[in-house]
Parts: sequence; structure tokens; C-alpha cells
Amino acid sequence: MAAELLKGKPIADKIKVEVSAEVEALKAKGVTPFLVAIQVGENAASAVYTGAQKKVAESLGIRYELRELPAETTQEELIKYIEGLNADDEVKGIILQMPLPAQIDARAAQWKIAYSKDVEGMTPHNVGLVTYFAPRLAPCTPAGAVELIKSTGVDLYGKEVVVVGHSDIVGKPTAMLLLKEFCTVTICHIATGQRGLTAQHVGNAEIVVVAVGVPGIVKGEWIKEGAIVIDIGINKVGDKIVGDVEFEAASEKAAYITPVPGGAGVATTAMLMKNLVEATKWQLEMK
Amino acid sequence: MAAELLKGKPIADKIKVEVSAEVEALKAKGVTPFLVAIQVGENAASAVYTGAQKKVAESLGIRYELRELPAETTQEELIKYIEGLNADDEVKGIILQMPLPAQIDARAAQWKIAYSKDVEGMTPHNVGLVTYFAPRLAPCTPAGAVELIKSTGVDLYGKEVVVVGHSDIVGKPTAMLLLKEFCTVTICHIATGQRGLTAQHVGNAEIVVVAVGVPGIVKGEWIKEGAIVIDIGINKVGDKIVGDVEFEAASEKAAYITPVPGGAGVATTAMLMKNLVEATKWQLEMK
Repeated sequence: MAAELLKGKPIADKIKVEVSAEVEALKAKGVTPFLVAIQVGENAASAVYTGAQKKVAESLGIRYELRELPAETTQEELIKYIEGLNADDEVKGIILQMPLPAQIDARAAQWKIAYSKDVEGMTPHNVGLVTYFAPRLAPCTPAGAVELIKSTGVDLYGKEVVVVGHSDIVGKPTAMLLLKEFCTVTICHIATGQRGLTAQHVGNAEIVVVAVGVPGIVKGEWIKEGAIVIDIGINKVGDKIVGDVEFEAASEKAAYITPVPGGAGVATTAMLMKNLVEATKWQLEMK
Repeated sequence: MAAELLKGKPIADKIKVEVSAEVEALKAKGVTPFLVAIQVGENAASAVYTGAQKKVAESLGIRYELRELPAETTQEELIKYIEGLNADDEVKGIILQMPLPAQIDARAAQWKIAYSKDVEGMTPHNVGLVTYFAPRLAPCTPAGAVELIKSTGVDLYGKEVVVVGHSDIVGKPTAMLLLKEFCTVTICHIATGQRGLTAQHVGNAEIVVVAVGVPGIVKGEWIKEGAIVIDIGINKVGDKIVGDVEFEAASEKAAYITPVPGGAGVATTAMLMKNLVEATKWQLEMK
């Protein structure tokens, strides 16, 4: 069996069309969604990312500003800056770009973002809402992954799901979003691997989501015949970008598989803009 | 094999000794942990529960007050009452007793409790902290269940865990607390059962936690030889109280099993008092 490719672009495009219409509707009411990205110090990779954000934002009628703070910014100064944006009624969404300089406690700073402006869905309040199956601003990559899975038309109710990787950013929120859909969810991680039990779990899974950050850590032969495979890993091997799943071998067994690049990551920026619209609405409700 | 009984009382007693010492230390600093339970309308079951809370609290030197609001209290009035307690510096912990009258949205009211006073660990912020593996005020029954498991001396790292039931109050937080200990965690629920796959998952589990509320829904024959079985169900069948696991049959296979009653539920009130101490400290830090 040769798997069908689950590309991110059609999902991203669909989301963008919806967001664009919502932005227009908000503007008609006199409200402009406005996203501020904070970058502390210079970082080449981050510059590529914020450049892409700006382009997507502006193509959707969203106001976007990159605020560059000096590399020597202290924790206190950063928090003060974030609090200023929290208090600014015009600002509807705030992103704190990673990585941050060593003197910054990234989590402590990120958690200071007002939850209704937390478009990356990383404050404890928003994480808790996801766990409560009442997501309001869910993390973008997991939300995009779920959209990709749904785009296959599969009925998620009762599906056997294995999530490999239990990160705060991807693994845990993806597990919760799929549990919300009544999947039976198993979360594997480094300790599962050390006991040699990941293969067995993956082998039982109708849907596999992998977000570890180790090239080819999930072997193609582990995949169950007909499974949906979502590979969120993005790894540089030589001058190639590869995922966490052995793509060729997995494609022989899966029914659907995401390419890397071009798969699960592609919808992330579109999801960010969708979250900005949601954040804008949430703030309007709170008034 | 006849399983060893995992009783809740030794755990509860151990927690109480610790709490009592901490309460004394706080009082020496001039701070009295003070717990307020709000009860809306009358309820016989709830009266038993608050009576027990008061007794345990006072035995540990904790100030405890039951505030009884009339059955016809509106949502707005209840929230105003909670906000008053949030603002009252003397009050260190707030419990909203369930059940509530039909006109009250229990979740919306509970979520108004200041997170640093949320001794039941039910606000989204505290749920998010549990998901972040940074629990501060974790839900009491799940925290007690983890203590029970640890009391067997088992090394949790890499253990195969199945949680049956995905409730907000027990299933999901228990799964997160065990994932934090690097267990490989599978969460089963009604959809797993409808596909007939719960037996298979439970059969692979070294640790099983069951919180469904259906007598004997987990069959004794499903249990893996040597497993630890934590039964959080409390069901009335005739005039007997039974759990969610077939106790006799499961005892033949498990290494450890909680009795019902007398098992997992017993530590809950002690955990509540432990959370009150933690809440008191948290509020002192925030000053």
C-alpha cells in the first residue's frame, strides 16, 4: 500500500480563507486584530519565522508588529513589557518568540501574557481549558495536526491513538485534543522507548502522532497497516529536512502520512492567525 | 496470588501528621490556614462530607467554616460571594460543595475561585499547571491515588499505566500526574468500552486506575498478573458500597488492590488539608 500524502497547505489555505472573512467582519465592526511578536535579541531562525508571520498576517488584513528588545533585556523588563501589551486595548494577541537569551526564564515570561491574548495557547489557564475539553486558544501545531487528521474524513470516535513525545508544546495538548474527540489515547515518551515498548504501542495505533525531534525514531515497520501518521518532527540531517518517522518505510504501511516538510507544520502559522481572531472575539466578550 | 490491600488510612494519617506540623509552623508565623466551604441549599450527602471536613480540619489546627447560602441563590450572587472570599485575606482556601441547585452553572462558579485559594485544584490555571508537570494545587483524589501507588514502593519510571475513565475530576488529572512520573499512560473511556478494547488495554497494564462510577465495569480476569489496581469508584449496590473493579476476582491476579470503601477515597480529605497549607504558602509568596 502506498500512503496518501497529507499535505498541510490545503488545510492552511482553508483556515486562511475563514480567517480572512472573520477579520473583515471584525473590521466592519471597527475592530482590527493586531498581533505583536516580541523578539529579544537577534536570531536568524526566528527572523525567518517572524518574517513568515508578518507576510501571512498582512495577507489576511491583520496588523502585525515585531517588537525587537535588546539582547540584554532582563526578566523584569520583559515582564513589564508584556504587562504593557496586556493593558493595551489595541493589542489583541501576543507572541513571545523563542529562543530567548539565557538570562530569561521563558516559561515565567510567557505565563505573564494575558490568557485572552495568549494566541500560542501556552498559559496555564489556556492549557487547563484544553484539558477541560473547552479549548479557547489551543496550541497551534496540535490544533493543526487535529485538522489534518480530520481532513481524511476519519471518524475519530473510539480510534486507537498513540502520541509519541510528551512535550508541553505538542505531545500533551495533541493528546488532550484527540481525547476530546473520544479517541483512546496512549502517550509514549523516552521511558517507553527505554523499555523497548514504543514499537508495540505504535503497532496497535490507528492514528500515530510523533513529536520527538529525533530523525527516524519511529520505524516504518512499526506502523499498523492502514494507519494515519502525523509526523511533527522537523530535523536537519545534512542539508535535508526530515521528520521523526522513517518516511519511505512508513508510507508502505500507512493509509495517510504527512510529508516533512510540507505536512503538519504548514498549518501552524494559519492557526496562529485563527487564534488571533478567537482572541479578539474573547476580549470583546469580556468587555 | 492474593493481592495485598492498599488501604487509604495509613496514607491519610501520614499526610495529616505532615499537615499538622506545617499548620503549627504557619501559626508560629502568625498565619492561620482558614478553609471556607460554600454550600448552596441543603443536601444530606454533602452535610456528611462537610461534617467530616470540619472534624479533620479542626483536628489539625485548621480553621474551618461552612457557609450555607439559600437554595434560591442566583449565579450572580454566588459569584459575588466567591469574589468576596477571594478578596478576604484571612481566607486561604475555598471549596464549593457539590451538588449545586439547578440554576447554578457549577463550573463557571468554581472557575471564579482565585487559583491560589482553589484547594480542590479545579480552576483552569491549576489544571494547566498539572498538565505542565508543575502542579501546585492538584485535585485531591488523583493526588491521593498517586500517593497510594507510591506507597507500594514501585518505581514508576516507564511503567505501563491504564486509566479507565476520563473525567475532569479524576481520570485526566490522574493520567497527567502519572505521566509526570514518566509512566506510559493510556486513557480509556466509554468509546474504548464500546469498541470492546478496554479489556485488552487493562490486560497490558502494570498499574490500573479506574474511575468510572459503574459497579464491576472492570472485570477481575482482565487484570495483569502482579498489577497494582486503584479503584476510585464508589457505588451503592443495595446496601453495599462497591467499586468499579470486580474486587474478589481482581484480587486473585493483582499484587496490590485498594478496597472499596477504605481505599483511594480515604486520603482525599487529608489531601484537601495539605492543599490548604500549600495554598496558604502560595498566597504568602505572592505578597
